[in-house]
Amino acid sequence: MLKIITIFFFTILFFKANADDGYRLWLKYDLLKNTSQKSEYKRFTNFIDNQFGESTIVNTAQKELKNGLAGMLGIALQSSSKKVGGIVLKKDLTIPKEGYKIQNIGGNIIISAQTDKGILYGIFDFLRQIQTESSISTINISSSPKIQLRMLNHWDNVLGTIERGYAGSSLWKWYELPENIDPRYLEYARANASIGINAVVLNNVNASARFLTKEYLAKVKALADAFRPYGIQVFLSVNFASPKILGKLKTSDPLDPQVRAWWNNKAQEVYSFIPDFGGFLVKANSEGEPGPQEYGRTHADGANMLAEAVKPFNGLVIWRAFVYGPDPKGDRFKEAYNDFKPLDGTFAKNVIVQVKNGPIDFMPREPFHPLFGAMPRTPLAMEFQITQEYLGFSTNLVFLPLLFKETLETDTYATGKGSTVAKVIDGSVHNYPITAIAGVANTGSDRNWTGHLMSQANWYGYGRLAWNHEISPEQIADEWIKMTLTKDQSSHKIVKNILLKSRETYVNFTNPLGLHHIMGQSIHFGMEPWLEKSARPDWTAIYYHRADSLGIGFDRTSKGNNALGLYAQEVQNQWNNPQKMDLNYLLWFHHVAWNQKLSTGKTLWDELCARYYTGVTEVEKMQNEWNQVKSNVDAEIFEDVKGRLAAQHREALNWRDACVLYFQTYSKQPIPAPFKKPERTLDEMKKIVEIYQLK
Amino acid sequence: MLKIITIFFFTILFFKANADDGYRLWLKYDLLKNTSQKSEYKRFTNFIDNQFGESTIVNTAQKELKNGLAGMLGIALQSSSKKVGGIVLKKDLTIPKEGYKIQNIGGNIIISAQTDKGILYGIFDFLRQIQTESSISTINISSSPKIQLRMLNHWDNVLGTIERGYAGSSLWKWYELPENIDPRYLEYARANASIGINAVVLNNVNASARFLTKEYLAKVKALADAFRPYGIQVFLSVNFASPKILGKLKTSDPLDPQVRAWWNNKAQEVYSFIPDFGGFLVKANSEGEPGPQEYGRTHADGANMLAEAVKPFNGLVIWRAFVYGPDPKGDRFKEAYNDFKPLDGTFAKNVIVQVKNGPIDFMPREPFHPLFGAMPRTPLAMEFQITQEYLGFSTNLVFLPLLFKETLETDTYATGKGSTVAKVIDGSVHNYPITAIAGVANTGSDRNWTGHLMSQANWYGYGRLAWNHEISPEQIADEWIKMTLTKDQSSHKIVKNILLKSRETYVNFTNPLGLHHIMGQSIHFGMEPWLEKSARPDWTAIYYHRADSLGIGFDRTSKGNNALGLYAQEVQNQWNNPQKMDLNYLLWFHHVAWNQKLSTGKTLWDELCARYYTGVTEVEKMQNEWNQVKSNVDAEIFEDVKGRLAAQHREALNWRDACVLYFQTYSKQPIPAPFKKPERTLDEMKKIVEIYQLK
Repeated sequence: MLKIITIFFFTILFFKANADDGYRLWLKYDLLKNTSQKSEYKRFTNFIDNQFGESTIVNTAQKELKNGLAGMLGIALQSSSKKVGGIVLKKDLTIPKEGYKIQNIGGNIIISAQTDKGILYGIFDFLRQIQTESSISTINISSSPKIQLRMLNHWDNVLGTIERGYAGSSLWKWYELPENIDPRYLEYARANASIGINAVVLNNVNASARFLTKEYLAKVKALADAFRPYGIQVFLSVNFASPKILGKLKTSDPLDPQVRAWWNNKAQEVYSFIPDFGGFLVKANSEGEPGPQEYGRTHADGANMLAEAVKPFNGLVIWRAFVYGPDPKGDRFKEAYNDFKPLDGTFAKNVIVQVKNGPIDFMPREPFHPLFGAMPRTPLAMEFQITQEYLGFSTNLVFLPLLFKETLETDTYATGKGSTVAKVIDGSVHNYPITAIAGVANTGSDRNWTGHLMSQANWYGYGRLAWNHEISPEQIADEWIKMTLTKDQSSHKIVKNILLKSRETYVNFTNPLGLHHIMGQSIHFGMEPWLEKSARPDWTAIYYHRADSLGIGFDRTSKGNNALGLYAQEVQNQWNNPQKMDLNYLLWFHHVAWNQKLSTGKTLWDELCARYYTGVTEVEKMQNEWNQVKSNVDAEIFEDVKGRLAAQHREALNWRDACVLYFQTYSKQPIPAPFKKPERTLDEMKKIVEIYQLK
Repeated sequence: MLKIITIFFFTILFFKANADDGYRLWLKYDLLKNTSQKSEYKRFTNFIDNQFGESTIVNTAQKELKNGLAGMLGIALQSSSKKVGGIVLKKDLTIPKEGYKIQNIGGNIIISAQTDKGILYGIFDFLRQIQTESSISTINISSSPKIQLRMLNHWDNVLGTIERGYAGSSLWKWYELPENIDPRYLEYARANASIGINAVVLNNVNASARFLTKEYLAKVKALADAFRPYGIQVFLSVNFASPKILGKLKTSDPLDPQVRAWWNNKAQEVYSFIPDFGGFLVKANSEGEPGPQEYGRTHADGANMLAEAVKPFNGLVIWRAFVYGPDPKGDRFKEAYNDFKPLDGTFAKNVIVQVKNGPIDFMPREPFHPLFGAMPRTPLAMEFQITQEYLGFSTNLVFLPLLFKETLETDTYATGKGSTVAKVIDGSVHNYPITAIAGVANTGSDRNWTGHLMSQANWYGYGRLAWNHEISPEQIADEWIKMTLTKDQSSHKIVKNILLKSRETYVNFTNPLGLHHIMGQSIHFGMEPWLEKSARPDWTAIYYHRADSLGIGFDRTSKGNNALGLYAQEVQNQWNNPQKMDLNYLLWFHHVAWNQKLSTGKTLWDELCARYYTGVTEVEKMQNEWNQVKSNVDAEIFEDVKGRLAAQHREALNWRDACVLYFQTYSKQPIPAPFKKPERTLDEMKKIVEIYQLK
């Protein structure tokens, strides 16, 4: 035995440096140290009795349970049907599909569900209770998802790159598939299942037609087979011009009979590979992608043609509303609304329209998209971005559940007070028959999955909110920190504080007071408020901030382009008055004079500067706070986060100096005390951004 | 203690699934099972006595030694100066720089060297002796590198992609640098040091100008600092147009005084960041890259200007000879020779010209580049490609030391018999004052570094040959298999057999008999012998195979374009006569009639078919052989390689069927018995390639 100990000892020693490289995410299952809790858990984990019935997913769930308990409690859970002190899986037809109950009944933990997926989610919840060291003696949990389809959208390309991906290359190794199944596919699936995600779109919405070829369908099938035991359904983004590209037809007109026949046949082929295939996601007539408008048809014509093709197989079509034309007099804010609102009620029943959370494009803060609440007869899906395209890539710590929650909780007033965005997309406002939510994934081949370890919390938090949008960011932070980082209470408190302040900090040093779209051309992590020329006017920065000698901001009130008029009157009232409104949205809707006194008591210019400077100070605070947790988190994780915080500080200084110096050329006012003026010149700041635009 | 054992036990259990993900490469340091060997080793590892002297590199070496012995022998090596039974590090000025001796003198293992790098390499060699379970009682090793600069060239781009990389994204995380030091940088450095690599070029030869900005130099410095303790020097690829791009000059003319001043200042800046910076690698006037010829200057003018800039700092300029113009009447085979041969003797002393192993571009088999032996007054570096651009990406098992060795051993006859390519580049033929060898890296962010686990052997083998080109591929295979895969003797034999046959197998099913450049446009792992139109004539396939109703092959004899005339007469004699020559090079130099009887007794057509079919059969054999080692290699590695072999089989069938069907349209002859004609049509084969060319 001593020899074995020695072997283990040195193996462990050797691995130590890489012991916590973040690969295990929040599913660590390390042995619990809290002995009193452990003995409580052991009282209920003497056996497992599966009365629910066998299925692949139930087997997965049981394996997961055994694995988790082996790790955390050091026990080997055996199947048995003893009477007391075990875990019993039961069928309960009264529980909503995918929902579950966890109860202590007569000294057993009963996990009951209607479906096998419910059992899977119940077991992951039970494991989470143990991971977070909650008491289970009086456990009584009843949970079911508020939204049916809880999706990840991967913007992964055929050659292994990821559009807006900052954590390595694609997880999907297309060249090796279908023959080689990377064990990581399973780890990916279990991580998703553990937070209730049940569907993934594998490829970029700027879709290659390759994916619909027989050769690639065989590869997609291999992934679908790998994910299925974890209850995850596979979707594909499709190229609307596929009939021309693959079928060699002369048109992709959705009303052309040959085109319709091509799609019908293609759908049949797809389902012959993957009988439970989810359906198609489509980006059409947007940013150069093909679509029905090329043929004078509407988005509904396009979507309905595809819907017809997948309908025999219970497939869905998810049609993105992210469309905008290059009209110099237009405003992206309004265009999706103008295109889609008139189509309400004309979509086939198996079509969902997927709308980004805000009207522009995943800015650090946006007002909710005006389509939410405006399409009572068309199921709308929410599209959030988990990858940090405009939130600092993977060098910035930003806890996104705060952003998600902010949008979800906003009231659309569509059918009166309380018609929150969350209630629109969960179907309760308009009684949508299908409900869906999508997050653009932040996963990649980096060992820790998300580049910034703290961004794992965004994947986790997205999943938790997709399941139940009523959970608070605080709860998400609590769970995630305990499962992933530390169980030390004072460190927990510090990290939680960092997470909860992080999003506002990022907004402050980049886009305070409702500024938006002033990031670097093509390099979206940096700043370029001076950008005045681009391939399209609405790709510049000046189009959005409209700074001039008088003031700054985009007048979207009725005196301006009245984009604000797209919202319900109650929403308009909230944002109509620059004096009384939430200043976080100010410059989204108003052009405000530099010397205008704001509700904070400061002038606009002084407030703007204060926020930029405070943002940087807050990053410095995060750095100091993180240093305090050193002894209670893994050494490798500590150093990694510390290094990234230092990079974030550098970037925050860049944003601050660049923006205040640039806007100062309009305001013509000094940096207000107590802040010191930047040590660098505007020209120097411009050069910093240029670096990132060199080939 | 029992509790600790339990903790270890379950930690190990949990990690088991990922225990051998290939991350540890050949530096596994697992506890040895062979107890008799172990007790021999323990007799000499009671202490370490560093009489050499302290230095960062010596510290690294000692740490590595302690780590390795802790893992393999389960002992904790302590510093001490006992008399007998330990390891003693000593200085010996008679040993060549970077060389070392390992001897048993008086019951101690003496590792001696002139320099600290020598100690580092000696210690890695000593560890390798233990890893491979060699006896050390009578150890007496004297080794020094035959080539001074043993480099990896990374074709890594600023945005994290790798040109011709098939193992994930770049290891260098530019956005996180310089603040965040990924622990993987150290693992990379130690892997290189363990095989004697002492220099790396960090970025793609299609170079972004970004790398020469102050911001990026700070990042490069961070990497240089991480690599330095392992004796690795950093180089950068530079964009020749940097004076225009970064300096805003109107020209990048190498004879312009302002341009020269710009480079002088830039070099000074680079060295202010990294005092031991290696120098610049340049791809100029090739495939669209800028260069001196734009200004009517020669490659020597360009190289010498840069050489002047780095000379005060002992820097080097490595100038690539991979140039070719889009002349439809030209031949890439001849162009580098024609451009560079006349410049021999005109380059500055700190310039090295880097030449690819063959005259076209890293084909599965090429004759050696005619510049080797033709530039007596210009140090030539060898450029091999370790990444498998034309050798099946990371789905094909190809043991490249066979290819490297084949080139190195070929005789140029430059100064008479025995003037092998190896002796040209190690300087012994022409007395080059600087000697260098470069391998285009196959590393990436994939957990196992190289995508295909077996491709680790190519990185390893490249390093070993760069150190000593006299080592045989058999020895490399022996070492690598023992260190990486298995110590079971029968499995060792099987894997070795697979490795040693793998390269010929790949040649057979892709480019038999000297065929070349018939791969897919842009997708180089597939076949496209029918490719007849491209942006340049020499990017097509028909330009190279020249198949017609009479025969196939490129007549490069004096009756053709006489590229063969670039070689020494003895070499010409070898390849002049299609009846007597090595058939592996046949179609490189001759257009041969379909019915021509070859030295094998078969007609050309029959031989061509036989090789394509045999190639596929050999893949099937590899698959069967691999299945036999299942119980003696790690389960995860076994499955991964098995899956990739299956993918390789699919690709081999594609190559075979596509090529024989296409060439059959010229030969008009049936597939010879006993081979069965392909089940697919040529049109079907064409479609398979088209898939990979869809957006």
